[in-house]
Amino acid sequence: MPDRGNGQVNDPVPAGYIAPGAMAEYMTDDWGFFVRSARQYERFSSPYQTVEVHDSVSFGKLFRLDGAFMTSEKDEFFYHENLVHVPAIAHPQPERALIVGGGDGGSAEELLKHPSIRSVTLAEIDLAVVDVARKYLQTVHRGALDDPRLTLRIEDGFAFVRNDRSQYDLIVLDLTDPGGPSKPLYTTDFYRACAARLTPTGAMTLHIASPVASPERIRANVASLRDAFPVVAPYLVSVPLYGGLWMMACCAHELDPRLVTPLIVERRLAHRQIADLQYYNGDTHRAAFALPNFVKKLVA
Amino acid sequence: MPDRGNGQVNDPVPAGYIAPGAMAEYMTDDWGFFVRSARQYERFSSPYQTVEVHDSVSFGKLFRLDGAFMTSEKDEFFYHENLVHVPAIAHPQPERALIVGGGDGGSAEELLKHPSIRSVTLAEIDLAVVDVARKYLQTVHRGALDDPRLTLRIEDGFAFVRNDRSQYDLIVLDLTDPGGPSKPLYTTDFYRACAARLTPTGAMTLHIASPVASPERIRANVASLRDAFPVVAPYLVSVPLYGGLWMMACCAHELDPRLVTPLIVERRLAHRQIADLQYYNGDTHRAAFALPNFVKKLVA
Repeated sequence: MPDRGNGQVNDPVPAGYIAPGAMAEYMTDDWGFFVRSARQYERFSSPYQTVEVHDSVSFGKLFRLDGAFMTSEKDEFFYHENLVHVPAIAHPQPERALIVGGGDGGSAEELLKHPSIRSVTLAEIDLAVVDVARKYLQTVHRGALDDPRLTLRIEDGFAFVRNDRSQYDLIVLDLTDPGGPSKPLYTTDFYRACAARLTPTGAMTLHIASPVASPERIRANVASLRDAFPVVAPYLVSVPLYGGLWMMACCAHELDPRLVTPLIVERRLAHRQIADLQYYNGDTHRAAFALPNFVKKLVA
Repeated sequence: MPDRGNGQVNDPVPAGYIAPGAMAEYMTDDWGFFVRSARQYERFSSPYQTVEVHDSVSFGKLFRLDGAFMTSEKDEFFYHENLVHVPAIAHPQPERALIVGGGDGGSAEELLKHPSIRSVTLAEIDLAVVDVARKYLQTVHRGALDDPRLTLRIEDGFAFVRNDRSQYDLIVLDLTDPGGPSKPLYTTDFYRACAARLTPTGAMTLHIASPVASPERIRANVASLRDAFPVVAPYLVSVPLYGGLWMMACCAHELDPRLVTPLIVERRLAHRQIADLQYYNGDTHRAAFALPNFVKKLVA
């Protein structure tokens, strides 16, 4: 990325002008971030949400849903590697996985790196997300959406989980924020439905919110998870296009990823021949669970 | 902070309009973040830089130098606790400390929490920074600038270090980014001058840049540090008003903070009766040194 440095004077902006074509995302009412669109490929309304695809210099192609940055070619690994490998490496031999949401294929791509994985079911409500991913985000999914081990279901994730009779070693909730169609999937009811789909030694991960911008949402959400799972392990990752620190959680009947040492992580990565990760390693696995004091208080 | 959520549609901005009075800071040419000023208290040019003080809803009072966010009441702890306690706790009994820059008093305030500290010398080039801190940033320095153990020197940090004959257990480089008056203090020459001021068991910390936005600056800077110190321990903290992940480094003749376990950190915090930290604890100390793969490659 071009290194601009901070030597430039950035005036307060009387009329709020930042740059032509800047896409803004608000963390709070008065704080947010922006990326300038170098080119707009798509902008339309699906039955569920506004879908946009843009190109950018700093992040490559990126897509937004209802104005929130979802995925970009260059920063997706922060999110997907930590959402997927934290539970997948903690599990000694994951075979069957379910992704709810994740139609961009980024989580599927990471899951399919584990050679014990025999099937991935992906339940995405919005076909438009899958379509734009196939068309524009090849470097994010790398063909995972069409992998023979993956079964794509275009349907509501809550209905799918409630009606399904399978059990999974790994469940990944790769959802939009709760302001839109995902809202019912941030409830104790849904989490209990997921817990019923999880094997005794399985693990489920999800992302939640920024502990800086949305502490109350985190407090409430972790409480809902604790109503559904005996083990709830919150963890933090700093994601560039989410504005910084972002909370995730790994939930299970028994499996506790905090008990998996850096050595075990490195051995499993080597044994599974997973050698191309840009972020995740044994040290970062353990480090993710190190909560700053203000976050500890939030999830106590 | 008010929880806005991401349910709002944020349109791409044709004329770049974000919000009245938004202060923007660029990470790269096309990516950055903004905070809306609720009130401007100060904006003037000192002999060295443009100085601004604003109020904001999300971050309280904040100040900027040459358009870059330096410190805010509500996020300063991310930066100051990690810049100071990582070396100060690693040192078994720090007595004499030097801060270069840091005129806002935030680093001094953290240092003075360690009961073994008998003197802090603060060499700040710009009296204006100290003046605005005294006037507006009480919650950041909490009176540290006027503590009897602190000696304030208004002078160029490089000249001070070169002419000084003292040795320090801790040196904290609490500088602006290298685009302005700090530029000469990001060189091997300056680092060697600092190394000469450091006791054999002492440690020096500094902050560097974003590994996402400015990887080349990090590579170059770590190389300069390695030309001056046998031990260079890079570490990462996610700082809200720096746009996310930010690299720091702890440098020494011998002391290696990576060898200080979480247990030792917790024991020393308890022994020193430091109980009010919002971020730093034994787990986060160790976690800061866990580098994602792409960062490991950068500092290899």
